[in-house]
Amino acid sequence: MVSIRITGLETLPEIRPGDDLAHLILAAAARERQEITRSTIVVVAQKIVSKAEGSIVDLNTIEPSSFSATWAAQWGKDARLIELVLRQSRRIVRMDRGVLITETHHGFVAANAGVDRSNTSGNDIATLLPADPDASAAALRAALVCGALIISDTFGRPWREGLVNVAIGVSGIEPLEDLRGTRDRAGQMLTATLLARADELASAAGLVMGKSAGVPVVLIEGYEWEPREGSARPLIRPPEFDLFR
Amino acid sequence: MVSIRITGLETLPEIRPGDDLAHLILAAAARERQEITRSTIVVVAQKIVSKAEGSIVDLNTIEPSSFSATWAAQWGKDARLIELVLRQSRRIVRMDRGVLITETHHGFVAANAGVDRSNTSGNDIATLLPADPDASAAALRAALVCGALIISDTFGRPWREGLVNVAIGVSGIEPLEDLRGTRDRAGQMLTATLLARADELASAAGLVMGKSAGVPVVLIEGYEWEPREGSARPLIRPPEFDLFR
Repeated sequence: MVSIRITGLETLPEIRPGDDLAHLILAAAARERQEITRSTIVVVAQKIVSKAEGSIVDLNTIEPSSFSATWAAQWGKDARLIELVLRQSRRIVRMDRGVLITETHHGFVAANAGVDRSNTSGNDIATLLPADPDASAAALRAALVCGALIISDTFGRPWREGLVNVAIGVSGIEPLEDLRGTRDRAGQMLTATLLARADELASAAGLVMGKSAGVPVVLIEGYEWEPREGSARPLIRPPEFDLFR
Repeated sequence: MVSIRITGLETLPEIRPGDDLAHLILAAAARERQEITRSTIVVVAQKIVSKAEGSIVDLNTIEPSSFSATWAAQWGKDARLIELVLRQSRRIVRMDRGVLITETHHGFVAANAGVDRSNTSGNDIATLLPADPDASAAALRAALVCGALIISDTFGRPWREGLVNVAIGVSGIEPLEDLRGTRDRAGQMLTATLLARADELASAAGLVMGKSAGVPVVLIEGYEWEPREGSARPLIRPPEFDLFR
């Protein structure tokens, strides 16, 4: 019987720059009598990784460009935040009706380049995505001695309302499950079926994370996979196959 | 402690047109000693709903239009399948490099309008999306006497590789969790945070469904929600807010 268990850790303290995140996660797991083993997939919310790594910015230190200031004024946005978003971006995908969707320096396409003001202490502090989420995931996996580690963030999508958790950093598992070359029940070849299982794992974790529930770390047990080095890069569609640039 | 359990049913037979799907699900659950109650969210793969409802088409009955035939020839596709996709669509979103992304009559944006040839018995049979997935979900929920029912399908996304399971029919739960007006830990208002929890539930189920593993029904326990009539319609972004038409 295939059965997966998804459990949130609820006793992590507020994370601050310089905190040893792995140590705090292990302490919370021990308090909550949750075991972390080589069969555990740990999903960690981007925000606490960014905070621990100091990927936060005081907006008062940001001098908006003329371009940022003009657009911010037009749509009632904070020009410093817009400027910060542009600095985190290498390409603007859409900039319309007050919505700013960009491609980050990592290659992720996200609203506001993943820059976020909520859940930070004080109105003038913004969190950025980690500089190298795969490296952050690998370091956390090594320190936690877990099977796989996924750093997740909530992203919007075209055509569908609502945010979903996706993987932005991956270690220990291939993010895509390749079913090409396998046969379905009727014996027909499945020619191009790639499942984004790292994103599905992140979304499953998102069900217990919530946005304000204070559950930034989730343990997944019972999911079987082949151990691999892993990375979130295969989740990024190459430009030549992207019909929505 | 927030903990969710996701369990697949593994003994369902191959579904055929006219089958009583609820009866078969209840029988499989009984065989596998899985209880379905008002606290259970049941996720059912679109394909078996379509099969039971007879939403399948023999491609030999389809006469391709000139438009379908020309495009199919250009990209090495089956003209009958392209014709069927167009008949399931009310608008073409992208038609490029052999990829056909359309808006279905329901309003979903999907590759090939959700028409699928895999997992059907015989090469010339294609499955369509259910005609009214919300109605299918509501009928199944009533017959199963479960808390909520989600009909899921695997959809691709712009910018990211791989398919993920999303909700196309919903009953018994609001698909979007509205956190607007709630405050985060720092006391700051979360002004526009809608989580697409029906999609996250579908993706969580997708982890045990696989594509060829023969697990088309998944039971989710331990997730708490307010009972509502529910529908997948709120997941569809209105045209006026869609920057990727």
